[in-house]
Amino acid sequence: MPSFPESSSFPEKADLYLLFEFLRFRSISTKPDHAPEMKRCAAWLQDLLNGGGFKAEVAETGGHPAVLAHGPKIAGRPTVLIYGHYDVQPDDPAELWTTPAFEPAIRNGHIFARGASDDKGPILAHILGAIRTLREEGALPVNLIFLIEGEEEVGSTHLAEFIRARRSELRCDVIAVSDTGMVGPGYPTLTQSLRGIAAMEVVVNGPVLDLHSGVFGGAVMNPATALVHLLSRLHNDDGRIAVPGFYDNVTPPTLMEREALAALPLKEADFQRDTGVLLLTGEPDFTTLERIGIRPTAEINGLTSGYQGEGTKTVLPSRASAKLTFRLVPNQTPSRVLDLVEIFFRHHQPPSVEMEIIRGHGGMPYTLDARSPWGAAAVRALEKTFGRSPALMREGGSIPIVQTFQDLLGSETLLLGLAPPGSRAHAPDENFPLENLELGIRLHQALLTELAVR
Amino acid sequence: MPSFPESSSFPEKADLYLLFEFLRFRSISTKPDHAPEMKRCAAWLQDLLNGGGFKAEVAETGGHPAVLAHGPKIAGRPTVLIYGHYDVQPDDPAELWTTPAFEPAIRNGHIFARGASDDKGPILAHILGAIRTLREEGALPVNLIFLIEGEEEVGSTHLAEFIRARRSELRCDVIAVSDTGMVGPGYPTLTQSLRGIAAMEVVVNGPVLDLHSGVFGGAVMNPATALVHLLSRLHNDDGRIAVPGFYDNVTPPTLMEREALAALPLKEADFQRDTGVLLLTGEPDFTTLERIGIRPTAEINGLTSGYQGEGTKTVLPSRASAKLTFRLVPNQTPSRVLDLVEIFFRHHQPPSVEMEIIRGHGGMPYTLDARSPWGAAAVRALEKTFGRSPALMREGGSIPIVQTFQDLLGSETLLLGLAPPGSRAHAPDENFPLENLELGIRLHQALLTELAVR
Repeated sequence: MPSFPESSSFPEKADLYLLFEFLRFRSISTKPDHAPEMKRCAAWLQDLLNGGGFKAEVAETGGHPAVLAHGPKIAGRPTVLIYGHYDVQPDDPAELWTTPAFEPAIRNGHIFARGASDDKGPILAHILGAIRTLREEGALPVNLIFLIEGEEEVGSTHLAEFIRARRSELRCDVIAVSDTGMVGPGYPTLTQSLRGIAAMEVVVNGPVLDLHSGVFGGAVMNPATALVHLLSRLHNDDGRIAVPGFYDNVTPPTLMEREALAALPLKEADFQRDTGVLLLTGEPDFTTLERIGIRPTAEINGLTSGYQGEGTKTVLPSRASAKLTFRLVPNQTPSRVLDLVEIFFRHHQPPSVEMEIIRGHGGMPYTLDARSPWGAAAVRALEKTFGRSPALMREGGSIPIVQTFQDLLGSETLLLGLAPPGSRAHAPDENFPLENLELGIRLHQALLTELAVR
Repeated sequence: MPSFPESSSFPEKADLYLLFEFLRFRSISTKPDHAPEMKRCAAWLQDLLNGGGFKAEVAETGGHPAVLAHGPKIAGRPTVLIYGHYDVQPDDPAELWTTPAFEPAIRNGHIFARGASDDKGPILAHILGAIRTLREEGALPVNLIFLIEGEEEVGSTHLAEFIRARRSELRCDVIAVSDTGMVGPGYPTLTQSLRGIAAMEVVVNGPVLDLHSGVFGGAVMNPATALVHLLSRLHNDDGRIAVPGFYDNVTPPTLMEREALAALPLKEADFQRDTGVLLLTGEPDFTTLERIGIRPTAEINGLTSGYQGEGTKTVLPSRASAKLTFRLVPNQTPSRVLDLVEIFFRHHQPPSVEMEIIRGHGGMPYTLDARSPWGAAAVRALEKTFGRSPALMREGGSIPIVQTFQDLLGSETLLLGLAPPGSRAHAPDENFPLENLELGIRLHQALLTELAVR
């Protein structure tokens, strides 16, 4: 159980101490052997919430557990569900971190640690905000539920089933999530849309074992060669995706949408600086923000074949594989996209190799109506906390569970970003601005107030 | 120092015991941290040779040491240099070995261990053959030199310089090497030609760090995508190499050459069985033996990019790399081929990524005149030992040092194969037929006899 300050309000230092504790858990959901650490992290959250006035449980899901907590019941007030996740991405390549991923460090006003911005910093801000209100005011302005899962980074495998099973307990009027980005430091951001996702692994199998590339080279199809030929067909030379039917049903952006994106305070130069690339590039006839926010993609996330150590090993590898993810926009579905890609690869597969296609997780794209009463309340809370009106952003990432909430609970989700550009989610030196912990706490308080009077 | 039998002749069991000792050394030359083990292996050879009547030294080369040994001087007789190597390929993927690579095991009449056929079994047969002759006859029929290097698997980096420095000591009339294949079990084989080799690593660098593939995907060139596009250009869809100028100067085979290859007792079905591929394939209008023996190749030996662990990690990788080797035939040179490939890649490199090209080792192709007096003596020795006239083979592998011998010592090299098909050089479950140890010993004895009276 975390040490818990006894004073009537949390000093910021105590908040930071708790965040550091939270960040030290190596809660990497994709690695099966990290299951005990996942459980310890969930139990820590349960203790924190119970100690702060909630009724919290570590709930079995069939996979990594979720933390579910209810605040005191207040009749006649709306019910708000705050969703987040305590699982994080792996820290590899670990050697590229300035300080170790699971030993939080402060540099230049930022907290560096895996999960700092995705999503431990933001979800902890919400928890601490609720606890602070309870301590200071004695009551929350709404009925509050926390649902903090442990499988967001692996596609929320078991959460839909969990929500279905506990639907009556999770019934709510609106959902709020801080797992998205801000358009700039200190710039409040409400996300209007998220891309969906579909994952696939392609494995090309050739000879039964690695062969000597001299003794057999030239007479046996090299699986790595077969794989690069297949993968190279995914995109035309101009950057468009070449899979037949891939863009079917993808609606071209309206002029208004294009203008709204162009008006955001995000500069191409900033993207270039943050990524360090020579030049930004992508599908022709679209801007960077359009390519990220409203256009689908096909990305290679990993390649593996043959010898990867020091020096040379003259093998003709027996297998070659690639991990792929596709980002989807409205009117695309994961299963249809994976079908199209599989048909495409099968069509082009050389007869001299075997090909295995392993489908991974999928998530639907999502769009929010920012002019709804809930959307307007979120806009007011962001404005009150940050002192300026929020940007309406179209994000490239995916939070598939948002669509699941819509389907299973029938509730709209508000995406209030707390991670500014440069937060390096999923990458070495992931970080979170120190000030965003306190801002996040105050945003939570303002949000509940506005939602109560929507 | 190996335990050394005191009886007048080696019982086969003692020979086998020595081979097992030799195979237990993890003499992997490509791994810098294996240097001490390389030294121990060289010292073991030195002790064996000294104990058997040679004057042996472990000679510094600037890299892994070479073992150099001279037999008793006999005036008026030709000098024969036997070349081999005690270094081996890495054992990875180690999990695919039936028994561990460095714990020799006997199954179905074969010795399984890394290096069993490439090249510890064959070179030890030569050593034991010479020692047996010395013990049994009291003298060798020729002046005999052993040169056993430790860097064959990494391109014999320092050997040319070593030969240059010790040229007077290494002067010889002919060289014999058993580091090639047999066309079938029990089928004596003299290799007429070897392909050359040129190695290259291509590294594509994109963003300065792995990016979130949702947050940035679509607006940043994925280095893995850039790499697969480049690599896919190496071959046309029909299997021909597409690098302009690659086939310049490559002489088409004569009808006689094609007929000689077609007459060898190697069946396409055997290649297919040994490799386990669905079908053999390669450059159009050539047979399997032609594709391996007389045509150049471009092979991907390894691919690396992004996330390669369990599950999914939605990164846009910051880099992607490939290890390549090209097998060369007469009139091609490593430097010219690497020039052509680099020009080709640079021409097709997208402007949005950086590309690093690292040149590796190179070796010239080699052709032997099998009708020379030395060649004819080798044919007779093979015939005497195996009881049938040898096949004249064109091998796909590379032994660059053979060309170096020609250049620096001016001597022809005889390539007498002791590794039958299925020996799995460079692959898991590498093996060597038990009987080939004794056959190799007798071949060595017959060879020296025939070379003495050429």
